[in-house]
Amino acid sequence: MSFAASVLTLYPEMFPGGLGLSLAGRALEAGTWSLKTIQIRDFASDRHRTVDDTPAGGGAGMVMRADVLARAIDHASPPGDQRPRLLMSPRGKPLTQVRVRQLAAGPGAVIVCGRFEGVDQRVIDARGLEEVSIGDFILSGGEPAALVLLDAVVRLLPGVMGNAISGDEESFENGLLEHPHYTRPQEFEGRPIPEVLTSGNHKKIAAWRRAEAEKLTQERRPDLPGALPQPLAK
Amino acid sequence: MSFAASVLTLYPEMFPGGLGLSLAGRALEAGTWSLKTIQIRDFASDRHRTVDDTPAGGGAGMVMRADVLARAIDHASPPGDQRPRLLMSPRGKPLTQVRVRQLAAGPGAVIVCGRFEGVDQRVIDARGLEEVSIGDFILSGGEPAALVLLDAVVRLLPGVMGNAISGDEESFENGLLEHPHYTRPQEFEGRPIPEVLTSGNHKKIAAWRRAEAEKLTQERRPDLPGALPQPLAK
Repeated sequence: MSFAASVLTLYPEMFPGGLGLSLAGRALEAGTWSLKTIQIRDFASDRHRTVDDTPAGGGAGMVMRADVLARAIDHASPPGDQRPRLLMSPRGKPLTQVRVRQLAAGPGAVIVCGRFEGVDQRVIDARGLEEVSIGDFILSGGEPAALVLLDAVVRLLPGVMGNAISGDEESFENGLLEHPHYTRPQEFEGRPIPEVLTSGNHKKIAAWRRAEAEKLTQERRPDLPGALPQPLAK
Repeated sequence: MSFAASVLTLYPEMFPGGLGLSLAGRALEAGTWSLKTIQIRDFASDRHRTVDDTPAGGGAGMVMRADVLARAIDHASPPGDQRPRLLMSPRGKPLTQVRVRQLAAGPGAVIVCGRFEGVDQRVIDARGLEEVSIGDFILSGGEPAALVLLDAVVRLLPGVMGNAISGDEESFENGLLEHPHYTRPQEFEGRPIPEVLTSGNHKKIAAWRRAEAEKLTQERRPDLPGALPQPLAK
């Protein structure tokens, strides 16, 4: 069964974007996954096709209306639809490779892209939207985040990447950043490839890579589970 | 002075993508920012236009060559170019709104999009590439991440969003997730807007929003600086 993505957005023309090219694009053509866009504005009820209104309690920006978005969601994801309903939002749970892998193993996803200041909380509650964040920064809307999520998921679908997915991914999922990579030429601007990598000693190579990954993780991401415990300060 | 982005990629056709639409697209047309794509493959030296090779030390995937990428970078960012050189990579420092704001205040960015297993470490070192991660997940390449970074930056450029950027952003930068939003209709599927928000009492509204933001941050993101200290377990 192919992975079915439905994206609710005010900018359907932003899709499939880069996902129409390269391996993801070929997989889309091959039917490994499908992508449907739903224009939220089509579910407005006035002749101006209004989807937003001023925030209750005052403040800057506009808020996406619960009723309009609920109708769009009910259209895209009728009762019985087993797909998770995601709302791309910086308030969400940070996306991880583990969640990406879960999504890729499932039937698809209904992805709501917010715009404006935010989405009325009542539609989030009433339709069980899972808020997903791709990071601690603010975007113009959920669309670039949805494209990132779909890119991460699609590359894991069977047949998309072939053998190109390596064991390094496992290292990443285990909470380690990747070791440095090198390839030809043997020397670049006076910098040689580290000797151990050309030694042919696979055990030493694996140990070196592991040590480099641990060092890098400790330096850059002591928050990751693969980081070594900090030595106690004296 | 306008913000000048140069993107090095094997898929220049992925740009400007969604950044050619909406407010970012209008700002691009207006010259508030500029976008140049550089095809890395144009800097290969063989007739097959090879940009990658097998990893030194063995393993799956392919590694982007240091020499080819260095030539592309030197073309895009000659000596004297004051723009930071970023490499989108899950090994990088996580992108934050603070870094986004710094970038938006600067002259622009040279953004390298990796593909394959990774990029030869020597060009990262020799050209001083700053590795930037948009999250703990793996993409097919740096392109979707570059589009996210540019979206976050462009919306902060003078004149792009007008007054639409609200004070809530400050709350986010101070390490709090945003409080819930509500707008008309007053009642949605039996759910009313919380009474305090329609009270007209601005002090109470501000206190309620702050408390909701703190509660949400505590629940979802106890790692953020705005999270309240955990009560000690008994």
